[in-house]
Amino acid sequence: MNIALDMMGGDFAPLEAVKGLQLYLSANSSPATIFCIGDETLLQPLLQEYNLSGDHIKIVHAPEVIGYHEPPTRALKEKPNSSISIGFQLLASGKVDAFISAGNTGAMLVGTMYTIKAIEGVLRPTISTVVPKLNGGTGVLLDVGLNVDCKPEQLNQFAILGSLYSHYILKVENPRVGLLNVGEEEGKGNVQAQATYPLLKENSKINFVGNIEGRDIFHDKVDVTVCDGFTGNIILKMAETIYDLAVHRNVGDDAYFHRFHYENYGGTPVLGVAKPVIIGHGISNDKAFMNMIITAEKMIESDLCNKIKESFTA
Amino acid sequence: MNIALDMMGGDFAPLEAVKGLQLYLSANSSPATIFCIGDETLLQPLLQEYNLSGDHIKIVHAPEVIGYHEPPTRALKEKPNSSISIGFQLLASGKVDAFISAGNTGAMLVGTMYTIKAIEGVLRPTISTVVPKLNGGTGVLLDVGLNVDCKPEQLNQFAILGSLYSHYILKVENPRVGLLNVGEEEGKGNVQAQATYPLLKENSKINFVGNIEGRDIFHDKVDVTVCDGFTGNIILKMAETIYDLAVHRNVGDDAYFHRFHYENYGGTPVLGVAKPVIIGHGISNDKAFMNMIITAEKMIESDLCNKIKESFTA
Repeated sequence: MNIALDMMGGDFAPLEAVKGLQLYLSANSSPATIFCIGDETLLQPLLQEYNLSGDHIKIVHAPEVIGYHEPPTRALKEKPNSSISIGFQLLASGKVDAFISAGNTGAMLVGTMYTIKAIEGVLRPTISTVVPKLNGGTGVLLDVGLNVDCKPEQLNQFAILGSLYSHYILKVENPRVGLLNVGEEEGKGNVQAQATYPLLKENSKINFVGNIEGRDIFHDKVDVTVCDGFTGNIILKMAETIYDLAVHRNVGDDAYFHRFHYENYGGTPVLGVAKPVIIGHGISNDKAFMNMIITAEKMIESDLCNKIKESFTA
Repeated sequence: MNIALDMMGGDFAPLEAVKGLQLYLSANSSPATIFCIGDETLLQPLLQEYNLSGDHIKIVHAPEVIGYHEPPTRALKEKPNSSISIGFQLLASGKVDAFISAGNTGAMLVGTMYTIKAIEGVLRPTISTVVPKLNGGTGVLLDVGLNVDCKPEQLNQFAILGSLYSHYILKVENPRVGLLNVGEEEGKGNVQAQATYPLLKENSKINFVGNIEGRDIFHDKVDVTVCDGFTGNIILKMAETIYDLAVHRNVGDDAYFHRFHYENYGGTPVLGVAKPVIIGHGISNDKAFMNMIITAEKMIESDLCNKIKESFTA
């Protein structure tokens, strides 16, 4: 198993990526081979300092970096030797099985769409977040910002993508799907939700259990919560502050509140594209990088992208 | 000052309304006169038991009650002697200056629209929630569910209504208005947010400071957060569960988390209608009822409805 890791992405690059790699390797007796993409004059001494060497580590030199504020499409065109461009080349050519970066999100999304491409039948790929539930379980909520205006048919597809992610990555047997809405009864909601409900109800590929409300998000009512990327993004960012609130009130160590800390889920896979791509938070720390590598491993092991392909051609 | 209180609304009616009334009266040396609307055979002994008598309490007999699951429009027509119908008659005729109920929300909204009516120029009245901020301040977020599909012009009006509420009721000097969105920069967002931004920017009646994100909701970036009722309702219900999470993790007594408990804000006024109407949560307890009476007092004292009228005719 080969995973490409952009060492130059994230606010603390490349240090946190190196430390995350160390965490990952020290916890795994048979780790994946990690292709560390970045400036080798920076990486070589840093990897040495952290005693990271051997067959499981390969440095891939990338002399360029795409900055956070560069316009994605132009940057990808003008910087073919950037760590992000090289990552996509490795993934597209099959030299690696997954690509992870905490760099420029726009460039990661554009690169994913143009180099890796959406699976046939998928109207719009999506990004998701995991949701820590009070009973200890983990839900998934999607979309969280890639698609801010959604047609009902797209939401219906998110339900399928989320269900497969929940099943193959979070290991939920028969994931329950809920439509995020302002009331429980069928017929409630805005025009979008009203039009989406019947599609979900008729969708034989998912286990739709009905509408869920804002108060249900952290409870064990559903495993997959479907919404558009506008609402989902606001919820995601609001949920992230729950950890901040807890820290501010000196209960940040609480095991439950801590699960809201972004480092514990790391990044979001792009669901609905042909190969595993994981996009990290700009503030990613070592633990976040480790968790992104673990998610990539699970996506490769479970062959998630092919399961999605099968579902969309069936 | 005369306030009508529906004693038959809420899951624990009339007991919690009576206890809330007692809390209110015991904390005020010169209270408003409360018109207690409900079944007098129930109310008389209960008010006596709680030693509530004197000039500040008037029982208004209402032999009927509108149940939680009755269709609003029909119920209002078929039960003219229900506590909600009588409350609106008292308010419309000027016998009272405000009406409060924790009963059937739909009936309260229909009654408000048909009996009290929207202020001229207001496209759609709105309901809001207060937001506890980490620095101790209090923000207001609207709409929270009355208008699930919004045109940009409606959101622009919510900004005005929220600003006046923030100024006159929450006593914020020059309330900062933010548009809830998925990014900070102008041009971000879904079609709705993109179309709303320029209207807010051009609106001379408000102090618009730009977009705010989900992570800013509990911070002191703005005093008024504008969104449609779909997103707002989900946020409101999600915020209510933050208190539940805190209780579940044994930090419910924490002063900050406790501010998320609905009882501390009680109910929501309907903004943009001609007279003060306050709608309570079905689960309202004594403290919630007390706080609704206090909000009604503030709305009457500040003459909020007329300030709104002036703003919309200016």
